Amino acid sequence: MELHQEITTLAAQLGAILTDKRLWITTAESCTGGGVSFALTNTPGSSHYIDRAFVTYSNQSKQDLLKVSETTLAQFGAVSEQTVREMAKGAIAASGADIAVSISGIAGPGGASKDKPVGLVWFTVQIYDEQWAFYRVFSGDRTQVRMQAIVLSIKKIIEKIK
Amino acid sequence: MELHQEITTLAAQLGAILTDKRLWITTAESCTGGGVSFALTNTPGSSHYIDRAFVTYSNQSKQDLLKVSETTLAQFGAVSEQTVREMAKGAIAASGADIAVSISGIAGPGGASKDKPVGLVWFTVQIYDEQWAFYRVFSGDRTQVRMQAIVLSIKKIIEKIK
Repeated sequence: MELHQEITTLAAQLGAILTDKRLWITTAESCTGGGVSFALTNTPGSSHYIDRAFVTYSNQSKQDLLKVSETTLAQFGAVSEQTVREMAKGAIAASGADIAVSISGIAGPGGASKDKPVGLVWFTVQIYDEQWAFYRVFSGDRTQVRMQAIVLSIKKIIEKIK
Repeated sequence: MELHQEITTLAAQLGAILTDKRLWITTAESCTGGGVSFALTNTPGSSHYIDRAFVTYSNQSKQDLLKVSETTLAQFGAVSEQTVREMAKGAIAASGADIAVSISGIAGPGGASKDKPVGLVWFTVQIYDEQWAFYRVFSGDRTQVRMQAIVLSIKKIIEKIK
């Protein structure tokens, strides 16, 4: 419950910064399924800084909508630094936004492999041409992993914009 | 921001039906900003029935991603039966899904006009080539309007699939 309040508060903070700086943002979301976009559009006036967002849950959709390369997906997998970097780049290209955040992870309970545990989430924040990629391994169930991923995305965007 | 218990329960019900019938779904969301997609992907195993979704907040994004015609937007506005019908059609075309739901409304507090009050939300549920368009005027604040729109979308999809 606290997490939810935290998300709307963070989204409103980010919204105020984006409005002030006249920046446009977009999201490219896999495991969060649109949760960051849903949070960002919770704030009144969000049409001044977000005009579209991409939920790319499958490999094919990452290729179709964000131009992630088939080779990258085959070689590194959907939950990888390489993929989230390409997702962010593709989201900016497909939207014209100044800022993108991409998220791809294993929310569970299924989907883990030897190298990639449940809770592993890769992110990229891109501002203009600069990218920051990072990952976390979150604890908790599917909902908790997704909520923590949404919180961290928004926090990191705020941190990098400043 | 929180996904009400009712939403997660409905999303799980719909997920079970989609899994059982081996149907794919997509969403084309304006005022809900990805909330339906976020709800649908809350259920474990959702990658078996949703592979992508479209958040089209601006008129331009509705044209770019969903091929809504500029004429339709100019003539009837983004919050109209004509627009949600084209959004659903475009979402199916851009995803290959069997089912789409499109949502466009005025969540408020701004954005109302003489003919279109805050709380007005238009929806289309499309299954294969068949469409059902409908609207509601919801009460409550921005969050409440969005939440009610998400609930009704999922309920209507369940009703029409059956």
